[in-house]
Amino acid sequence: MPMARISLLKGKPRSYLEVLSDGVHRAMVETFDVPLDDRFQVIHQHEPEELVFDRHYMGGPRSDNYVLICITAGKPRSTLMKEAFYRRLTEVLAESPGIRPEDVMVVVSMTSFDGWSFSGGVAALFPQQEVAQ
Amino acid sequence: MPMARISLLKGKPRSYLEVLSDGVHRAMVETFDVPLDDRFQVIHQHEPEELVFDRHYMGGPRSDNYVLICITAGKPRSTLMKEAFYRRLTEVLAESPGIRPEDVMVVVSMTSFDGWSFSGGVAALFPQQEVAQ
Amino acid sequence: MPMARISLLKGKPRSYLEVLSDGVHRAMVETFDVPLDDRFQVIHQHEPEELVFDRHYMGGPRSDNYVLICITAGKPRSTLMKEAFYRRLTEVLAESPGIRPEDVMVVVSMTSFDGWSFSGGVAALFPQQEVAQ
Repeated sequence: MPMARISLLKGKPRSYLEVLSDGVHRAMVETFDVPLDDRFQVIHQHEPEELVFDRHYMGGPRSDNYVLICITAGKPRSTLMKEAFYRRLTEVLAESPGIRPEDVMVVVSMTSFDGWSFSGGVAALFPQQEVAQ
Repeated sequence: MPMARISLLKGKPRSYLEVLSDGVHRAMVETFDVPLDDRFQVIHQHEPEELVFDRHYMGGPRSDNYVLICITAGKPRSTLMKEAFYRRLTEVLAESPGIRPEDVMVVVSMTSFDGWSFSGGVAALFPQQEVAQ
Repeated sequence: MPMARISLLKGKPRSYLEVLSDGVHRAMVETFDVPLDDRFQVIHQHEPEELVFDRHYMGGPRSDNYVLICITAGKPRSTLMKEAFYRRLTEVLAESPGIRPEDVMVVVSMTSFDGWSFSGGVAALFPQQEVAQ
């Protein structure tokens, strides 16, 4: 039920974007209670003047490989689960496509369950309904 | 008071985008308690590798006409109202520009009333103030 | 801890975007309790059919210089602080790059503190931890 909006600088090959997309999803599946096929992502590639980030605030140093990952999620997650996700995400992206942990920034926002309609003009099922299926 | 951020694959003519924009707004006016002239939308057109979506999760099958509509709203809406909106939205978009309901995904997020400034550096009026005008 | 997603029509020179970015950040630092080096912004430039806005709803008249500034913040802000920010933002942008207050729209959304990881795979520090450093 989450969706991810990912921003980075232009100039990476398509394969880099695919591996980045895979990695974000893999970390969500492994640590953020996301089903394998619940994958919805939007990637925005930016000119240098369109992606503004401090190189050192609360971490870094950030490089031109900086990636901002904004996640909107529908199911509440604990602080512990979020922390596990942040950690795993940086591990996965460091491995491939080779993004340093210093360059990974995440913002998770929550919205209510009934704010989701995946398809067909119907609201998403509530967790208990999913179980009942 | 809502704004809609709409993502789809590149390649549609301008007229398609205009009809899509009209349809999203029409469904909001008809079912989501949105004034006719309260229309603010951002459309993002993506390369295939920039728009990632599962073809079957909780609905579908989704095609290359998939459209992700992220709405930020300031006024609380009931689950019933959201459900009516999802349904009407798919009806309207099926009619024109001819998007199958399976391809329509919606995520509604709420924010507080005082988080909106439409213009002129002032906060949006609260509902009771609107009435009082 | 906020991030700003800024949308405007294509066609402005790079220097305009830089001054816009500077102005948004300056107003946040002066009135929205944002540290000087807490600067994270994404700018989206749009074709006319991709940026849809009513010219008169709750303000305006809006021109082709319309700018939509969507802010996600992690620390709660009072209505008074938001109002001060809206006001200061329009003053700063009017001065440079010369955007009329009528053309400035803002949407502020909040998310929880533990929804932020700035870097390194760790959650952002809580305010009391920041103080304790």
